[in-house]
Amino acid sequence: MKVERKLSPVCWKNVKVVDHFWTLRRETNRTATLPHEYELNKKSGVITAYQWDWWDPARGKAPWRIWVGDIGKWVEAVSYTLATDPDPTLADLAASVVREVLKGQKEDGYLYSNPLPRQWRWTNLQEYHELYDVGHAIEGAVAYYEATGRRDFLDAMCRCADLLDANFGPEEGKIRGYDGHPEIELALVKLYRATGNKRYLNLAKFYVDERGREPNYFAREKEEAKKRGIPLMGWMDTYEYVQAHKPLREQQDAVGHAVRALYLYSGAADVAAETGDTELLATCRRLWRSLTRRRMYVIGGVGSTARGEAFTFDYDLPNETAYAETCANIALVFFAHRMLQIEADSEYADVMERALYNGVLSGVSLDGKRFFYANHLTVYPQAAKGAHDHVAASRQDWFGCACCPPNIARLIASIGQYVYSTSKDELYVHLYVGGSAECSVAGEKVVIRQETQYPWDGLVKLTVEPEAPSRFALALRIPGWCRGAKLEVNGKAVGLRGVTRKGYAVLRRVWERGDRIELVLPMPVERIEAHPAVRMDCGKVALQRGPIVYCLEELDNGPHLADIFLPRSSKLTAEYRPKLLGGVVVIRGKAKRRETTGWRDRLYSPERTKTRTVDILAVPYCVWANRKPGEMIVWIRGD
Amino acid sequence: MKVERKLSPVCWKNVKVVDHFWTLRRETNRTATLPHEYELNKKSGVITAYQWDWWDPARGKAPWRIWVGDIGKWVEAVSYTLATDPDPTLADLAASVVREVLKGQKEDGYLYSNPLPRQWRWTNLQEYHELYDVGHAIEGAVAYYEATGRRDFLDAMCRCADLLDANFGPEEGKIRGYDGHPEIELALVKLYRATGNKRYLNLAKFYVDERGREPNYFAREKEEAKKRGIPLMGWMDTYEYVQAHKPLREQQDAVGHAVRALYLYSGAADVAAETGDTELLATCRRLWRSLTRRRMYVIGGVGSTARGEAFTFDYDLPNETAYAETCANIALVFFAHRMLQIEADSEYADVMERALYNGVLSGVSLDGKRFFYANHLTVYPQAAKGAHDHVAASRQDWFGCACCPPNIARLIASIGQYVYSTSKDELYVHLYVGGSAECSVAGEKVVIRQETQYPWDGLVKLTVEPEAPSRFALALRIPGWCRGAKLEVNGKAVGLRGVTRKGYAVLRRVWERGDRIELVLPMPVERIEAHPAVRMDCGKVALQRGPIVYCLEELDNGPHLADIFLPRSSKLTAEYRPKLLGGVVVIRGKAKRRETTGWRDRLYSPERTKTRTVDILAVPYCVWANRKPGEMIVWIRGD
Repeated sequence: MKVERKLSPVCWKNVKVVDHFWTLRRETNRTATLPHEYELNKKSGVITAYQWDWWDPARGKAPWRIWVGDIGKWVEAVSYTLATDPDPTLADLAASVVREVLKGQKEDGYLYSNPLPRQWRWTNLQEYHELYDVGHAIEGAVAYYEATGRRDFLDAMCRCADLLDANFGPEEGKIRGYDGHPEIELALVKLYRATGNKRYLNLAKFYVDERGREPNYFAREKEEAKKRGIPLMGWMDTYEYVQAHKPLREQQDAVGHAVRALYLYSGAADVAAETGDTELLATCRRLWRSLTRRRMYVIGGVGSTARGEAFTFDYDLPNETAYAETCANIALVFFAHRMLQIEADSEYADVMERALYNGVLSGVSLDGKRFFYANHLTVYPQAAKGAHDHVAASRQDWFGCACCPPNIARLIASIGQYVYSTSKDELYVHLYVGGSAECSVAGEKVVIRQETQYPWDGLVKLTVEPEAPSRFALALRIPGWCRGAKLEVNGKAVGLRGVTRKGYAVLRRVWERGDRIELVLPMPVERIEAHPAVRMDCGKVALQRGPIVYCLEELDNGPHLADIFLPRSSKLTAEYRPKLLGGVVVIRGKAKRRETTGWRDRLYSPERTKTRTVDILAVPYCVWANRKPGEMIVWIRGD
Repeated sequence: MKVERKLSPVCWKNVKVVDHFWTLRRETNRTATLPHEYELNKKSGVITAYQWDWWDPARGKAPWRIWVGDIGKWVEAVSYTLATDPDPTLADLAASVVREVLKGQKEDGYLYSNPLPRQWRWTNLQEYHELYDVGHAIEGAVAYYEATGRRDFLDAMCRCADLLDANFGPEEGKIRGYDGHPEIELALVKLYRATGNKRYLNLAKFYVDERGREPNYFAREKEEAKKRGIPLMGWMDTYEYVQAHKPLREQQDAVGHAVRALYLYSGAADVAAETGDTELLATCRRLWRSLTRRRMYVIGGVGSTARGEAFTFDYDLPNETAYAETCANIALVFFAHRMLQIEADSEYADVMERALYNGVLSGVSLDGKRFFYANHLTVYPQAAKGAHDHVAASRQDWFGCACCPPNIARLIASIGQYVYSTSKDELYVHLYVGGSAECSVAGEKVVIRQETQYPWDGLVKLTVEPEAPSRFALALRIPGWCRGAKLEVNGKAVGLRGVTRKGYAVLRRVWERGDRIELVLPMPVERIEAHPAVRMDCGKVALQRGPIVYCLEELDNGPHLADIFLPRSSKLTAEYRPKLLGGVVVIRGKAKRRETTGWRDRLYSPERTKTRTVDILAVPYCVWANRKPGEMIVWIRGD
């Protein structure tokens, strides 16, 4: 049996996002983040570095090996923005950046941050990120082409992909290697979809399948490099780290560097979708379960340790030393989105939403210029001063290895594409985002509109407007966090139980212009528990309302947050604060905490300490650290 | 006003320890640990390494720079043992080891693990441990002399100290430096006490006072070393790490490498006691408070992080990544013991006892041959596999940098000296240990005897036997952990309130042979809380009974220990198990834990999980990890 990709996302170009929540972020992205990143890239020499022939120490610091990747992501982000929010200044910048990038391309199509002499090309795939760079450049080129219709970048990247195709593959005389940092796989599938050139798909499949085979390519490569005097960094030198410890199809658990893992799984899902490879799809499902059922933070973050920015083991989710890199959380969205198209199961959309509204958005400040690379779930500022593993108590500015900033920029710019999908005769709504989309269903052009204050309110009013009355299914996601959803079509209640399939309420009928759907998703404040094996969260609850996970900040709740105890009997109320943090719903309630006064100078005591009742105020995790620095916790002690 | 040292410890030679608890450990120490360490030292070349003139790579691995220190501690441990438990085999081994060590001493008295060419001596004091080695050798020599009456080692170490005295000091032409690893300071005071040579005391005082002065000696030293091409390791290169960031008298908090800190404070306390320096004593008190009131684990462990085996900041006491190095916990005993002699305040004895019965003894297995260097308070074996900072799930064998094994051996061998102190007309009992001691009080020879099952039972029967009726004060420590102690003298109740001074019940009277004292120290199981600022322990309790801190092991309680919840209403009972772990009191009770069955594949859930009641069994922390490896926790969730 072959896989058939069930859904296709409605392209970002055809989706209008007009709600307050995302508009705020998209505007900040367009007016602050993207110009800011351009300036910093320019200042750091990122835009022109790879035009050199080879790094010459006299020119200063060597170009960082992921710089083409960063530029690719930036062009991609700008492209999405241009299509929906035309901006001549950004358009000019993008055109000039593309010109600069293309100046760096060698005659035969080769492109890399720090171009290698021809005889050294592809000789240290494990460490150099040569194909990673090409992958991001391809993603940028495809988006740029789709947004502007300009083929210059796309054609150039096709030449680059052709060069890879000529040099990599199972055929005699070609390199049977793959990149240490997956990315090229998913990019080649994008390029295949944009150009129809099946060689790109085949090459992607080759990279996915070759990875981790015995004899291990990286082992052979390293031996060869040593012989030839090619510089080795010897950095994080395990095959698990690069997911090459065994063939992907034999891998049972999500391991190693989390961004690499998720990019690889995303590419594998793409290949499975395009080739109909059921075994590969089963692999993706298995790794998805490992990821999301045993190795994911409640904020939709992955990668528990700063050591190798990596996965550790089942249920090992330390809060204070969490890594949960913004790039990894974004990559989780990518993987979820791909699996969702294949399986049309809301489980994927649930995780996608969880990551988007929490662990992804936390990566950027409200002013769009400061970034969390690691997303901790507990922060004690003193602990961020070197005492423990990689703890940052506040967002930092863009820096040399600036993988996360353009990654978050491209995601925010393309948020529209995550909202809807279609199949032949179905229109899926995955996310509730005010705005509209144009798509084609059952041969008919259909406009769908959403009116909602989501994520702050669970009332969603939808209208569908087919050009002519048309029979198709409208499938509305009933979020996994929601209990007691209610649905009406044209004022008439629809029993959800009867129509729900894989988490979607499927309304199959003849739709006419002006049909109104009203979905009510009750949003009480929920106390979330983690599985008893998550040792860090035992006896604790996370507050969640709708898709939003909350946290306590010291500014609102005083110091020693770990001591706050939230009894189940405490009534929690939600309250919209239009002027706070860009407009958010906060959660308020009564909690208890111990008095510290009686302790004087003691550190341990057999006497029970008196507690007092205090007011607590929780804010959405995604906007924490936008005010005065201080402590923060997601998991609150509770009974 | 000058400090006057109030008390002097009754020498280990004059104390008989006959109770089950310590006899078991002393016998294991004598028959297993000490011979085992000898064999391993011999095999590793530790005993003869420093007889070389200079390390020659052709001879193999360079001698490790603390090896003389390790040998010094071993000789010290054997010496204590020989005096109380004669053992001809050990005596011969010790004599031969001393001979070998002395062969390594250079003509002018110089002794170091890896002897430096003359022009390189004392040129990298920050890193090389040259004076640290001398310090431990001096401690070994003094103990060896006191135990055996043999002067060979002592005389040799006097020559070594004389060499230091000729080369270090404030005088023109001498080196104004000090060792990166304090130890020489306290050793020189010991040598002064053994020989009466005041130059040694003065040199100790110089080292204490010079440390951290500006311009910083280590900064100057490093510059000079770079110029001269002297190898620098560049390891843990901060002045806080070596307590040289400012003069000791200006230091407010316990910082840096914990063993270094505690050895330095011990030496400073010695100097203060001998010189009557009240400012220095005030410094010791201040650092004591920093240590014990804000930076000490409930097991009497110090140094919260493996990074630099160091202190971090106030109330930062992570359990799973605790370092609490066995050597640091031992050094805490040293410092406490010194402060106790000066101030006769039970606060010091309380900490000394806490460390001894918990974080020190946990360092060695019951068979005496395996060691914890780090003493975690939470262990999840999977986390010990590299995912996080330096977590060991089971004791390891002796290894190259074997600082802890001989340190614990010398402490166990000398336990007697911690039990009693005297002043002119006072006899202090600090610890309750079955056995007897001979001492001199108020000019009279007095024998004191204790009968007790301590630490398992709080009934202590004491008798005093002066040669003739004699007026003096018998001061009995009322432990800080104890509430409701009761005291009788010759069957007659004594009101504690009236006689208690600084935590000691002071019984001043004419004592006659046969006077009987009965002290009852009730030992209910206590639920100990940590200060609310200790974020890791909020909502948790540690079980303590008498001086013993307990823990839960997976073997007795199943996996996922973090989920166990111990309600305050649960009755906890203590039960002696003669065959378990060498004979221990265990604690039993009912607790609750969540069912994992209902979770199936979920990681987070808004539904409250059902709990079930379970039996728990806690064992003394000091004997954990002597059975099947598994999880362990000290802090248990409680209300």
